[in-house]
Amino acid sequence: MTNAETLVAELKKRRLTCATAESCTGGGVGALITGAPGASEVFLGGVVSYTNNIKRDILGVPESILNPPGSGAVSEECAAAMAQGARRLTGADIAVSVTGLAGPGGDGVHPQGYVCFGVATASKSATCSRIFAGDRAAVRKAAADFACSLIVEEARRIS
Amino acid sequence: MTNAETLVAELKKRRLTCATAESCTGGGVGALITGAPGASEVFLGGVVSYTNNIKRDILGVPESILNPPGSGAVSEECAAAMAQGARRLTGADIAVSVTGLAGPGGDGVHPQGYVCFGVATASKSATCSRIFAGDRAAVRKAAADFACSLIVEEARRIS
Repeated sequence: MTNAETLVAELKKRRLTCATAESCTGGGVGALITGAPGASEVFLGGVVSYTNNIKRDILGVPESILNPPGSGAVSEECAAAMAQGARRLTGADIAVSVTGLAGPGGDGVHPQGYVCFGVATASKSATCSRIFAGDRAAVRKAAADFACSLIVEEARRIS
Repeated sequence: MTNAETLVAELKKRRLTCATAESCTGGGVGALITGAPGASEVFLGGVVSYTNNIKRDILGVPESILNPPGSGAVSEECAAAMAQGARRLTGADIAVSVTGLAGPGGDGVHPQGYVCFGVATASKSATCSRIFAGDRAAVRKAAADFACSLIVEEARRIS
């Protein structure tokens, strides 16, 4: 089973739905999930927020996070707000977010491969961050896989 | 040059931006575009609207299109409304939409591989449809590539 097939099976079994808010993966998490037949039973959709304006205007990420002296778009604070925004917009049981530095290059503060994730449900909001090795493509692939696994983990926790 | 690299180069040269509204590709168009370094200069983001509710609530596709006796979610009418919705939400110069039947199987009316596309700009709204051969993965890949080429074509037409 691929990651996406596991996700579809696990959420279907528990009658849970999921959604995404993606920055550096650009749609790669949604594409990964919907690569599995039957994804339409568990995946509602999401927002690809590649710019700060879209993070703010569609997902509702506060300016105070995006702009100085806030933590900026590549931060766990931003990831949390993105996931909450995706959950609010879609009504999904579990929303996951991804924002990070796929490269080439870091941003002067964090290295290339630094990616923040958010998970939002009705009762919880959690974040984490990882540094993935490799080039832009490798970082994006690893980040999408990891986001997928966060959804599965959360589904198993919920029920 | 990959399709995405061409897109980034062409839009950058013309100072144009783009956005997406995706159904059957599930984020694959955004993922394709953002696979190219420099995509952040031309790609704003988009909406993955895998369910009819998200097509309606976030992209503003009218119920009269989505539900009988409308044409349904897999139609050029729906593709047009999705692209217009993405443009309105993001403010991009060019928005492209994708909605179709990646499979497995058709929907009783259209065959597997039938995909509708919309292109919206400030002054125009156009649609087209194609039938792509192959399995789910092949259809999704072909549809994402085609959406990418529609954006490039429109950019060249605009300026």
